[in-house]
Amino acid sequence: MVVNLYPISHYEFGPKETKVEKDSSVPAHFDRLREIFQKEGMRTSVAGVLLVQEHDYPHLLLLKKIGETFKNLPGGRLKPGENEIEGLKRKLTSKLGPRLQNLVPNWEIGECVARWWRPNFENFMYPHCPAHIKKPKECRVLYMVHLSDREYFEVPKNLKLFAVPMFDLYDNAQAYGPVISSIPEQISRFEFRMNN
Amino acid sequence: MVVNLYPISHYEFGPKETKVEKDSSVPAHFDRLREIFQKEGMRTSVAGVLLVQEHDYPHLLLLKKIGETFKNLPGGRLKPGENEIEGLKRKLTSKLGPRLQNLVPNWEIGECVARWWRPNFENFMYPHCPAHIKKPKECRVLYMVHLSDREYFEVPKNLKLFAVPMFDLYDNAQAYGPVISSIPEQISRFEFRMNN
Repeated sequence: MVVNLYPISHYEFGPKETKVEKDSSVPAHFDRLREIFQKEGMRTSVAGVLLVQEHDYPHLLLLKKIGETFKNLPGGRLKPGENEIEGLKRKLTSKLGPRLQNLVPNWEIGECVARWWRPNFENFMYPHCPAHIKKPKECRVLYMVHLSDREYFEVPKNLKLFAVPMFDLYDNAQAYGPVISSIPEQISRFEFRMNN
Repeated sequence: MVVNLYPISHYEFGPKETKVEKDSSVPAHFDRLREIFQKEGMRTSVAGVLLVQEHDYPHLLLLKKIGETFKNLPGGRLKPGENEIEGLKRKLTSKLGPRLQNLVPNWEIGECVARWWRPNFENFMYPHCPAHIKKPKECRVLYMVHLSDREYFEVPKNLKLFAVPMFDLYDNAQAYGPVISSIPEQISRFEFRMNN
């Protein structure tokens, strides 16, 4: 399958208001997850693999909170019962969409890239649900997002957007964690066409 | 997408004659590759991801040459111009097919799992062709092979077949190399149905 990539210079980025942080720390985050799990069961979260090209080479778009170390894929948690594709569109609009509704990209959600499982209220995730885990706490699904030739994005003021080359992600769980560092392998099945 | 897995006990394994080794050492192997590259250009090799279940958990079938350390996926090198799917069927029959032609499985080759590139005549492979490499030396393509409920295989006497659980492959490049150890991430997008 051919995936078209366009130069990063084809995309424009403006600022928008800061997204309010729900959790002040990692333990607070897992406390909140535990509370939600009691009420709603397993959390599903979605994330988008958005690619651009620079020097005819694929780059992945990642967001970093100002003051934090790790970069993240754009995405977030689904509402109970929400469809994964629709939920990802909602999250992409929240993270990258312009405030002007008619400028919001017509998100084209493509192939499922990977599905990760969080067995416990801890950082560790696995690309399969361990056999002894009957009630995983979170399932994180990654989808390809096919960008059109030109788009205008707006990024919350407390986030910074990066375009990271594939070779920097590959075999680099130390810098990006296992979910993001294994994207080059997962998308190697696609043929990338570099457009200008 | 749902992938059906059947118990390993549903598959029978018999012996067949030893496959003659083409190369006596790793340097000899790369010498031969270099020679073929001069004549035929980039080598394409194919490999199959064959899965079974044990204790309701996915296991990958791998072959190991007796006396060697590393396990390999069944597969091999294509002839110049050979179709990837047809070539993989030929290689699977050569490695796992019974000598009796009418017992050879009707190989169902499925989704592309990954595509790895060898930039030089060296062990290193990458899930993307490095930007500065204009003439990669090998492209290795992995495909899902959907096994039917019951099959009979024959394994060359100098090879041993293993069913390795996903959790043993994951994050274990030290034991399996980068191509095999990243299969759990690459196939995490499938939903596995455990049949009995």
